[in-house]
Amino acid sequence: MPMTRIASAALRAKLTTAEAAAALIPSGATLGLSGFTGSGYPKAVPMALAARIEAAHAAGDPFKVRVWTGASTGPELDGALAKADGIEFRLPYNSDPIAREKINSGQMEYFDMHLSQVAPMAWQGFLGPLDIAVIEVSGIRADGALIPSSSIGNNKTWLDRADKVILEVNRWQNPLLEGMHDVYYGTALPPNRVPIPLLRPQDRIGEPYLRCDPAKIIAIVETEAPDRNLPYAAPDATAAAIAGHLIEFLRHEVARGRLPASLLPLQSGVGNITNAVLSGLLDAPFENLTSYTEVIQDGMIDLIDAGKLTFASATAFSVSPQAADKLNANMARYRDKMILRPQEISNHPELVRRLGCIAMNGLIEADIYGNVNSTHVMGSYIQNGIGGSGDFARNAYVSIFMTPSTAKKGTISAIVPQASHVDHITQDVQVIVTEQGLADLRGLSPKQRAKLIIANCAHPAYRPMLEDYFRRALAGSYGQQSPCLPCESLSWHQRFIETGTMQG
Amino acid sequence: MPMTRIASAALRAKLTTAEAAAALIPSGATLGLSGFTGSGYPKAVPMALAARIEAAHAAGDPFKVRVWTGASTGPELDGALAKADGIEFRLPYNSDPIAREKINSGQMEYFDMHLSQVAPMAWQGFLGPLDIAVIEVSGIRADGALIPSSSIGNNKTWLDRADKVILEVNRWQNPLLEGMHDVYYGTALPPNRVPIPLLRPQDRIGEPYLRCDPAKIIAIVETEAPDRNLPYAAPDATAAAIAGHLIEFLRHEVARGRLPASLLPLQSGVGNITNAVLSGLLDAPFENLTSYTEVIQDGMIDLIDAGKLTFASATAFSVSPQAADKLNANMARYRDKMILRPQEISNHPELVRRLGCIAMNGLIEADIYGNVNSTHVMGSYIQNGIGGSGDFARNAYVSIFMTPSTAKKGTISAIVPQASHVDHITQDVQVIVTEQGLADLRGLSPKQRAKLIIANCAHPAYRPMLEDYFRRALAGSYGQQSPCLPCESLSWHQRFIETGTMQG
Repeated sequence: MPMTRIASAALRAKLTTAEAAAALIPSGATLGLSGFTGSGYPKAVPMALAARIEAAHAAGDPFKVRVWTGASTGPELDGALAKADGIEFRLPYNSDPIAREKINSGQMEYFDMHLSQVAPMAWQGFLGPLDIAVIEVSGIRADGALIPSSSIGNNKTWLDRADKVILEVNRWQNPLLEGMHDVYYGTALPPNRVPIPLLRPQDRIGEPYLRCDPAKIIAIVETEAPDRNLPYAAPDATAAAIAGHLIEFLRHEVARGRLPASLLPLQSGVGNITNAVLSGLLDAPFENLTSYTEVIQDGMIDLIDAGKLTFASATAFSVSPQAADKLNANMARYRDKMILRPQEISNHPELVRRLGCIAMNGLIEADIYGNVNSTHVMGSYIQNGIGGSGDFARNAYVSIFMTPSTAKKGTISAIVPQASHVDHITQDVQVIVTEQGLADLRGLSPKQRAKLIIANCAHPAYRPMLEDYFRRALAGSYGQQSPCLPCESLSWHQRFIETGTMQG
Repeated sequence: MPMTRIASAALRAKLTTAEAAAALIPSGATLGLSGFTGSGYPKAVPMALAARIEAAHAAGDPFKVRVWTGASTGPELDGALAKADGIEFRLPYNSDPIAREKINSGQMEYFDMHLSQVAPMAWQGFLGPLDIAVIEVSGIRADGALIPSSSIGNNKTWLDRADKVILEVNRWQNPLLEGMHDVYYGTALPPNRVPIPLLRPQDRIGEPYLRCDPAKIIAIVETEAPDRNLPYAAPDATAAAIAGHLIEFLRHEVARGRLPASLLPLQSGVGNITNAVLSGLLDAPFENLTSYTEVIQDGMIDLIDAGKLTFASATAFSVSPQAADKLNANMARYRDKMILRPQEISNHPELVRRLGCIAMNGLIEADIYGNVNSTHVMGSYIQNGIGGSGDFARNAYVSIFMTPSTAKKGTISAIVPQASHVDHITQDVQVIVTEQGLADLRGLSPKQRAKLIIANCAHPAYRPMLEDYFRRALAGSYGQQSPCLPCESLSWHQRFIETGTMQG
């Protein structure tokens, strides 16, 4: 078997087909699947399971499963299972369009969690029992140790907590991934928790392999299937303007002695705008950058190529198909500059605060006081989820949120009188950036924040409306700490729902 | 000088009057004052400063200062300075009624902060320069080391960061406080931060004294003045019912193996309800309890007396006058069971998550999805501030919020369609308790949470209105993840403002 990545003969004996593996999953099962963004998710068993579910439904059997993952996955997992109406309950993050539609039409229950808290809460028993782990790995060693794939996510916890395990061994994954991972096995339940001994993004505190009791492995499936991440949009003028304002702010902070010349470890949320900011750092006067973040994006690979970024720690790759090709072709050169860790470590509040990460995340809307909505369009329709933004924003050295000032051809203002849903409270939002400008909110009261956000961040088409609202709220509010008019503060959202635009 | 608590002759030479010390404070100065709840705040210099400010205002001089503290203080500080219209800007927490009125009438800017973040942000330079620290201590040793008072708060940081220092040495404070404190000097700015070596509430990781460069001390004032904490209300039937539901929940968690028999370190927010829950633990079947929290309240002293609580770690005492008398009369017996620490340590996310605190905090309102408003009445009028609730709720083992189901004689429902302000997002709110019952929200989607909160926590007078709203939101919402009707979701608050009741 020259192509096999399974060095253990005992485990090779468990090789089977995806269909046979999927047949081992009963209706009602809770599954812990690998996958974080479009990386390292199982690609064959979920498709086979979806086919089985569709057949069951056709036969009148209401077959459903509960799905836990690292974060988002690919169309072969969330897409296929959602399309089959096979997901009863989903956590902790989703970006699949079919699953999103099922959630927002009320057909799927979705529990949107802080990504650092998934593994601890599973251990604490707060999420219920876990029946079967379905985990993609890039190989199995002779001693049975699992070589992780292009993401780690919650795999360690799923393998430890599940009653049974199904593995997918994906030959498409680069064999040079072996040794890049750092799986920390020092977590515990209180009162036995101890300090996590990580002081720098490049510190190794664990081991490169995932452990798994071989007796729990009920099936192994070999695959050769690419990860499916989406391409990033090329930075446009809006993204470039946002990056420009942000880099000017960082330069100013270095000049004032509030940031080291090489900044502090960068966290960058997933998305086109945050990726564009990373690209903007290519031309910025910062050297010896590091990153401690959730995902390694295209922009980080470019920064490594340029010699600007010396090290990146994450839990997953989230790279475009083009960047994946470059990464795989040059893995020997990149692999000493990167570590992938479990997401409870990549996102751990203890570590984010200790390292002093510079958190850079996108948003859906911010209100004039700087409450940020990262998840719910018009307060009710979930886009993706909070992901790791809460882990990083609250514990960052400085917490930055960025967005174009309008969306949907100007019909939506990203700055509103009151956020229709809140994911990040004012205390966790220190800087807001749009293409219009940057508001440095540190040390300011709510009214001082409002003036700055309206003046610096709002689009000119909406600025007079915001000024008018704020002026009337100052005159007529119940209290003057955070003036608001409850009869009107969500009227922009109502107007959009009724007329298709927030413009009055 | 038989009564003096100043053993250093060099520092005794700086003794002066409160008036003379206050005369050293210029208009526009930023002051870092001691004080956390009604404990350990300076009592003479702020009064003298208030008199000076009133005289300046009478003479046409717009004298104001910027006030930073640990948390709330007493009437001699916040009350006197606010009454004199002497505070231009205030952080990070306030509960003084006069200051509250000035804030809510728009006469004072107030920056409401996570209490764990005050010291780090001051060090990071995000709050601006600190001119003068005014700190109450309980004595000064011959070597110049300062014996802390009944709170520590941000004193270490104010003493280190301020250009000049004024000390109040309060003879009223119990001399047996000496040795009870644990001041950790291991904090740093990133990239030089290291793990905080605390594993148990009773661990000592620092030193019992505050350091202070004697060259910075510009005045010392002796006082003999009591701390001014308010008495706690005796638990009524509502508080007893809340405590009963909560203790039943904890018993259930122990029985299910999700909590150790001695629970995990308790955090208890300041307030009558949380204090009543502590009293309820007197009769509960839990032994060898510990506490890792902000303040030591009456209920904790009772638990120590009963042999139920073996150790309490906090940053301040917050005890009624009666409990203060008992504490002072028996300090020799209590002092080995308590530690006071800087608030950046008592509230540190790293430590709260490591220890696995059981967080128990009050609230103003929660919405049907479990977003919690802890601060703003009707969305705009600030009551006190977020305090440490965000530090604990997000990092707790289990985060519990509790409240009577109605306020103001039933005219306000504590459960509303949408929170008018959000301090704690759904992800950080795992359990809500009212006298009606308890909602265990762990692992549930928003719609599942809504059904449970309405059924278990809402008052019967408001439950049908909430059911009606939720039913219509399910039918007419833009998206179905967290159904809402933006034209109506804050109408209960508007109705209260207009009519004095949320009842339709």
